[in-house]
Amino acid sequence: MLGANAAGLSAASRARKRDPRLRITVLERGPAASYSNCGLPYFLSGRLASLDALRTHPVEYFRDRRGLDLRLGHEALELEPARHRVLVRDPAGDESWFHYDRLILATGAVPRWRPEPRRNVFAANSWSDAVALDAALRAGGIRRVAVVGGGYIGLETAEALRRRGLDVTLYDAHAALLRSFDPELTAALPDRLAALGIGVRLGVRVQSLEGLDADAVINCAGLRPSSDLARAAGLALGASDAIRVDDLQQTSHPAIFAAGDCAQTRHRLTSAPLWMPLALPANQQGRVAGANDPRLRCPGALGTLVVPLAGCDFGRTGLSLAQARAAGFAAAAEEVAAHAQASYLDPQPITLRLIYDTAARRPLGVQLRGAPGTVAARLDTAAAVLAAGLGLEQIEFLDSAYQPALAPLYEPLTIAAHNAHQR
Amino acid sequence: MLGANAAGLSAASRARKRDPRLRITVLERGPAASYSNCGLPYFLSGRLASLDALRTHPVEYFRDRRGLDLRLGHEALELEPARHRVLVRDPAGDESWFHYDRLILATGAVPRWRPEPRRNVFAANSWSDAVALDAALRAGGIRRVAVVGGGYIGLETAEALRRRGLDVTLYDAHAALLRSFDPELTAALPDRLAALGIGVRLGVRVQSLEGLDADAVINCAGLRPSSDLARAAGLALGASDAIRVDDLQQTSHPAIFAAGDCAQTRHRLTSAPLWMPLALPANQQGRVAGANDPRLRCPGALGTLVVPLAGCDFGRTGLSLAQARAAGFAAAAEEVAAHAQASYLDPQPITLRLIYDTAARRPLGVQLRGAPGTVAARLDTAAAVLAAGLGLEQIEFLDSAYQPALAPLYEPLTIAAHNAHQR
Repeated sequence: MLGANAAGLSAASRARKRDPRLRITVLERGPAASYSNCGLPYFLSGRLASLDALRTHPVEYFRDRRGLDLRLGHEALELEPARHRVLVRDPAGDESWFHYDRLILATGAVPRWRPEPRRNVFAANSWSDAVALDAALRAGGIRRVAVVGGGYIGLETAEALRRRGLDVTLYDAHAALLRSFDPELTAALPDRLAALGIGVRLGVRVQSLEGLDADAVINCAGLRPSSDLARAAGLALGASDAIRVDDLQQTSHPAIFAAGDCAQTRHRLTSAPLWMPLALPANQQGRVAGANDPRLRCPGALGTLVVPLAGCDFGRTGLSLAQARAAGFAAAAEEVAAHAQASYLDPQPITLRLIYDTAARRPLGVQLRGAPGTVAARLDTAAAVLAAGLGLEQIEFLDSAYQPALAPLYEPLTIAAHNAHQR
Repeated sequence: MLGANAAGLSAASRARKRDPRLRITVLERGPAASYSNCGLPYFLSGRLASLDALRTHPVEYFRDRRGLDLRLGHEALELEPARHRVLVRDPAGDESWFHYDRLILATGAVPRWRPEPRRNVFAANSWSDAVALDAALRAGGIRRVAVVGGGYIGLETAEALRRRGLDVTLYDAHAALLRSFDPELTAALPDRLAALGIGVRLGVRVQSLEGLDADAVINCAGLRPSSDLARAAGLALGASDAIRVDDLQQTSHPAIFAAGDCAQTRHRLTSAPLWMPLALPANQQGRVAGANDPRLRCPGALGTLVVPLAGCDFGRTGLSLAQARAAGFAAAAEEVAAHAQASYLDPQPITLRLIYDTAARRPLGVQLRGAPGTVAARLDTAAAVLAAGLGLEQIEFLDSAYQPALAPLYEPLTIAAHNAHQR
């Protein structure tokens, strides 16, 4: 196993369950095993006093309870599939060949943009960079921070640092933020961020750090799969240069599997291969890779994503309208402005967009913007509906929960499906 | 149309959509059209200043905008299916025969227990009784209230009146409250109600009002379908004496349809006929009855229910463990204690019970108890999963939303399905 991230440890745990006597070695380049990447903004904002809270388990847990030979600080330098071995450098700097019967690659993702080395440039998705950034902030002297990249990681990081009292400016090369959403849902986001005191500079491609008037730079300008080792070993790469795998997570070499952010997935609706670095699908892939059981196959992913930004929750699953049309569907969107409670009980607003196939009368995607707490679980219903392949009429007849203070008689999704079905 | 409740008006509105020139008459016995029954506790607690908030639309809306001849205070006395007519008494007391081509019965439900008439006895699910109770409370002299019946309506009513400062005692003939839930989930409920200052007397069958040491009595001891008119006219009755209908809501007489709390439904999983007086299925039945279109059929109901009680939300959908076993399934329950957020962000507790078919590896029901706001939308996902017929393994691979502050990496339902699948 290469990589002690969530995908890697899911795979190792599943393999252990399958065979209690298997010798399982997990080689991890970094200093920490399996932590919640997605929780880093809560450390940067100051809400969490220590990064330790983000560890899912202490290292001893994996060693003692799951019987994994977990080696931190071990970097894989070279992979020889034909000889079933990988060259590893240990923390002391010594190099040696490690032999395996089966190898699972869970090498994760790395920042796509690599600015010239400079002091006070930090990646957003890394434990060690978060430690370094926090230390630099505590040391003082950093007041103005530039966050480069307006995807959900950049936006969460910008808001977290603003909460910490810093002077934050967000840069993105495009005209819109959060571009996996339909723009109708996110149009007000720049203004809402500005209202929090975050500077927003759209349509600005940051090429070098010189032009940024900032004491520190956070690199949120996207990720790429960490597939260099696999590529050099001759493994086939796929979408976005992610490691190509089948639905058993097997790579082009039969003894090597890959899971998580380094591996390709496929879209659950279109079956198109794509790269989608998200936590839950990464864990699911790990489980499939570790099970090594032809009955357990990865069904692909919907790209379900939820993020709290500037006082609203934003969520998406399935295809956006633009993605649906690009995939060749005769797609339309039905937008409803609805509420999370009965109208007479100070209801919280929700806006839902249902992207649907006008020919097949089927949903293709759902996007939501709502008051805090109103979006995530609703998104799960939409994801279940998409995974199950329900049609618009079946959505109309879902037997949803209703109680005036807790849920409206007609859910926004039901209303949208009804309206779309009438057209 | 008989009955201007939600089912009746759903039916009328759908019929209007289908044919703009249809003559549609809605005869309603009571003084109010289409109000939110389920909102009455919020009026009784004092949260809503007026019952008017519970009207979905003013009467004029139905008359002017939907073109319905809506007649309040008109009571149907007798139905002659063979002659396509119904004897109606108008508010002036005059009786006359009303002739129809198609009739939809939406006569609702009435209290099952009819205590001898006495001052200060009120039904829980009635507009006029709520008005009278509120007036009596305002007039003073009522301090001690007995609520008879420990179903969700009785519990909500007891808590509402306690909020209003009254001395409330809840009586139920059985040993447990909220009996459509697995008892494991509701065992602490009596203590939690007691902590709010509500007296709880279980295993006490209230036969007469004499023994109750109370200034007023709220009759929440269950409902029965209002099917006397249909029975007298010779229409077939079904489960619990609800009017028997097919999945087009057609009764045993081809020109007469029935929808809502007066009509039978069937369980979506077992297809067993049953009576399930709940708001959303009632509306869905109304829509089917009004559409009168062989392509639009009622898929039945799952009994999805959510209710906030004593600081927790309780929710259920599908079969309880007892119901599943009674229906002949080899059923088991998998209970998980989980959280609504990542463990490091002060997560709110959720307990979920998955009732599943151990042979077919399929879910049969889901029950939830959780912190306020954590249950209703999760229940919708469970209801969608049940409606779609997903298996345990498919639930494990749902592409749910994850964000540390908004949703855990693994949803309680996913964990339960995983655990159940491993057994």
